[in-house]
Amino acid sequence: MRPLQPSRRSQVAPFEVMDVLDRVAVLRAGGRDVVSLCAGEPSGGAPSLVSEAAARIHASGRALTYTSALGIRELRTEIAAHYGRWYGVDVDPARVAVTTGSSGGFVLAFLAAFEAGDRVVLARPGYPAYRNILTSLGCEVVEIDCGPDTRYQPTPELLDAAQAAGALAGLIVASPANPTGTMVDRGELAAITGWCADHGVRLVSDEIYHGVTYPEPGAADPRGVCAWESDDTSLVISSFSKYWGMTGWRLGWMLLPEDLVRPVDALAGNVALCPPAPAQYAAVSAFVEESYRECDEAVAEFARTRKLLLDNATRLGWGRAAPPDGAFYYWADLGPQLTRWGSSAGYAAALLEEAGVAITPGGDFDDRAGAHSVRLSFAAGLTAVGEAIDRIEDFHAR
Amino acid sequence: MRPLQPSRRSQVAPFEVMDVLDRVAVLRAGGRDVVSLCAGEPSGGAPSLVSEAAARIHASGRALTYTSALGIRELRTEIAAHYGRWYGVDVDPARVAVTTGSSGGFVLAFLAAFEAGDRVVLARPGYPAYRNILTSLGCEVVEIDCGPDTRYQPTPELLDAAQAAGALAGLIVASPANPTGTMVDRGELAAITGWCADHGVRLVSDEIYHGVTYPEPGAADPRGVCAWESDDTSLVISSFSKYWGMTGWRLGWMLLPEDLVRPVDALAGNVALCPPAPAQYAAVSAFVEESYRECDEAVAEFARTRKLLLDNATRLGWGRAAPPDGAFYYWADLGPQLTRWGSSAGYAAALLEEAGVAITPGGDFDDRAGAHSVRLSFAAGLTAVGEAIDRIEDFHAR
Repeated sequence: MRPLQPSRRSQVAPFEVMDVLDRVAVLRAGGRDVVSLCAGEPSGGAPSLVSEAAARIHASGRALTYTSALGIRELRTEIAAHYGRWYGVDVDPARVAVTTGSSGGFVLAFLAAFEAGDRVVLARPGYPAYRNILTSLGCEVVEIDCGPDTRYQPTPELLDAAQAAGALAGLIVASPANPTGTMVDRGELAAITGWCADHGVRLVSDEIYHGVTYPEPGAADPRGVCAWESDDTSLVISSFSKYWGMTGWRLGWMLLPEDLVRPVDALAGNVALCPPAPAQYAAVSAFVEESYRECDEAVAEFARTRKLLLDNATRLGWGRAAPPDGAFYYWADLGPQLTRWGSSAGYAAALLEEAGVAITPGGDFDDRAGAHSVRLSFAAGLTAVGEAIDRIEDFHAR
Repeated sequence: MRPLQPSRRSQVAPFEVMDVLDRVAVLRAGGRDVVSLCAGEPSGGAPSLVSEAAARIHASGRALTYTSALGIRELRTEIAAHYGRWYGVDVDPARVAVTTGSSGGFVLAFLAAFEAGDRVVLARPGYPAYRNILTSLGCEVVEIDCGPDTRYQPTPELLDAAQAAGALAGLIVASPANPTGTMVDRGELAAITGWCADHGVRLVSDEIYHGVTYPEPGAADPRGVCAWESDDTSLVISSFSKYWGMTGWRLGWMLLPEDLVRPVDALAGNVALCPPAPAQYAAVSAFVEESYRECDEAVAEFARTRKLLLDNATRLGWGRAAPPDGAFYYWADLGPQLTRWGSSAGYAAALLEEAGVAITPGGDFDDRAGAHSVRLSFAAGLTAVGEAIDRIEDFHAR
C-alpha cells in the first residue's frame, strides 16, 4: 500500500523570488521603506472604460452565469478585429479562444498540441511556468541556452542542434521575452516559423507583452510581430494583463490553428468551464480608442523609466545587460558584484537587507547560469526606479 | 516527421447536451418559445452584498493585480470560519486554497495528488469533467456503476470490487451528486473515508452543492457532511457557483491535506498564477448573515420547485428517478418513453422539436446506461418547471 503523498509531478521547485517577497513583507511590516522591483505587472490598472463597465455590470446585480467555453462572441469578435488593427491580419472570431489569463491558455495549448512524452523546446533563460506546466503535463522540456549572440532568442541553428538530439514536437517563443525583454524581428520570426513548418514542430508564440514595446520612431513593427503574419498553424497566446494592465482579472486569449479549435473547445469546457464572465463583458471596452490611448500612456511611462535606467546603467555596477526591446524587464549579468556576493540569490538578499531594494534573482529563469544574473522590473515607474538606482550605487560604495 | 495534429489526450467526446443547446439557440432565434432545463446553474445571481462590493471595487478604479497563488488571506480566513459555522470543523486558513472555480481546483487536486497512470475511481453516472480532466492528465479512470440500491453512490463493497481489479490511488465522491442529486449521510461518508484510510486511497470530496439541500426539519446535517469531519487527509472541493449563485465568476476553493499545501501552492503559481482578484475581494462579503439569508431564500425557491416536480412526477411519464436530496437535478430513467424513442438523445431531440422543452440526455453522465436516462435541472424555477411538466405531458399524449 503506497502511503498518501504528493505526486512526483507536483514537485515544482519553489521560486527564489518567493524568499525575497516574504522578506519584503516582513521588512515592511516592521516599518522599513522597501523599493520592490520584483513584480512583473503594471501598477496603473485597467483602462477606465473597462473598470467602469465592470462596475456597471456588477451594480446592475444581473446574474453572471457561465459563458461559452471559448468566451462570449462579442469579445472574440473584438479580439479578432484587434489583429486587423495592429498587424493587418484577418482573424476569424471562431478561432479566438478567450482564456483564464495566459496561464489558462498555456494549459489548454499544451494539452491540445502535445502528447505526454513530447519534446518541447524553449529558450533558457525564460519564463519558468512554461517549463513547470509542461513538466506537470508529462512533456519533456528541452531548454536551449540563448545568450547575447542571438539576443537570448532561439534561431534555426540552435533549433537544428536541439532537433539533432531527438525529434521535437513543439517550440515556445516569447517576444518580448521574460526575463530579457528581447524581441525577434519580422525576419527572425519568419525564419522560426519556416523552420517549424519544415520540421513538423508546433510553434506556441507568447505575445503577451505585445504593445509594451519601445520602437524607434518609424519602426516597421512597433507593437511586435504576430506569428500569424507568417503561419496560422501556430498558437498565439496573449493576455489583457500587460498592455491593458489587468493582471489580477485573469483574462487572456489564444489564436488557434484550425485543427485545434474543437479540441481546445472540448478541453476548456472540462478543465475551466469558461473564463471569468464579468471580466469578459468588461473587456469588450478594451478595444476602443480611449482605452488604447490610456494603455499607450502607461507604456510611455514605462519608456521614460526604461530611459532613466539605461542612461544610468553604469551606476548600477553590474555587467552586460540584455537589450530591453519590450516588456519592463532589465536582465543583467552581475559582473563585478558576482565576485563579491557569489550568487544572484546572495546578492539580492544582501541588497534587500542593506539597501531596501528588492529584485529577482536569476535562478528562477535559468537554473544553470541564473546565479550570475538578476531581473529588475521597471514596471514600478520612474520614482521607484530612480530611488533604487541611488540605493544600489550607495550599497556598492559601502 | 509527424504531421501537426491535435494530441490524443485532447480527444474529449463532445457533450450530447451541446447539440441540444445549439438547437435551443436556433429555435429561439426563430422566435420559438423554449423552456430550457439543461443548465446546472442558479439564475438568481450573487448575494447583493457581493455584487455591490464588486461594483465598488471596480468603480474605485484601483489596480487589480496578482494575488497570492492560494488567494487573499482575508478570503481564506472567511472560508475557514465558514467550516466552523456550518460543520463545527476547525480549519486553518493556511490549508484553504482559493481556486478558479471548482474546475481550477480539480486540475490542481488531480495534478498534486495523482501520478500519470494512477487509477482513480468514481461513480457512474457522474459529472463528466472528472473523467475528462483525469484522462487528459494521464490518469486511468475506473468507473463503478452505482444504481438505486446504493442511492447512486459508491460503497466500501463496490470499492473493494474495484480495488480487486488493480490498486486504486484515488476516489472522487460527490454529495450532493451531479446528475443524481443524491447524498451520502454521515455514516456512509465515514465508511468511505475509513475504507480510503485502510487502502491508502486519496479521497477527493466534491462538496460544491453543499447548502443546496432539502433536509427534513430537524435533520442532523442540513448542509451536507464535510469529509473533513472524519478525515483531513482528504481534499475537499467547493465553490461559490451553486449555493452563492456565482457560476460565471469562476471562484471556488479547496481544503488541502497538510502534505499537499506546498505542492498545490507551487503548482497554482505556475498553472493559474492566482484566482480572479476582483471576485476574491468581493467574495469576502459572501460570509455575512445577509448573504447567507439571500442564498437560503434561493434554496427555498429550489425546494418549492423540487416539490412541484416530485408532486407531479407521475405526469412526466418516465420511470424510476433518483431521490434528489440536494442540488437541483432530477435524474430519471425514461421508463415507457424509452420503448417509444429508443434513446435519451432521441427523446430529448424530439421533446425539444415538438414540445419546446430542453433537457439533458443521460449519455453525458453515463456512457453505458445513460441512453436510458435524462437529467432535468429545476434551477430554472417554478414557472419554467411547471410549464415544462404541462408540455411533457401533452407531448406524450400526442
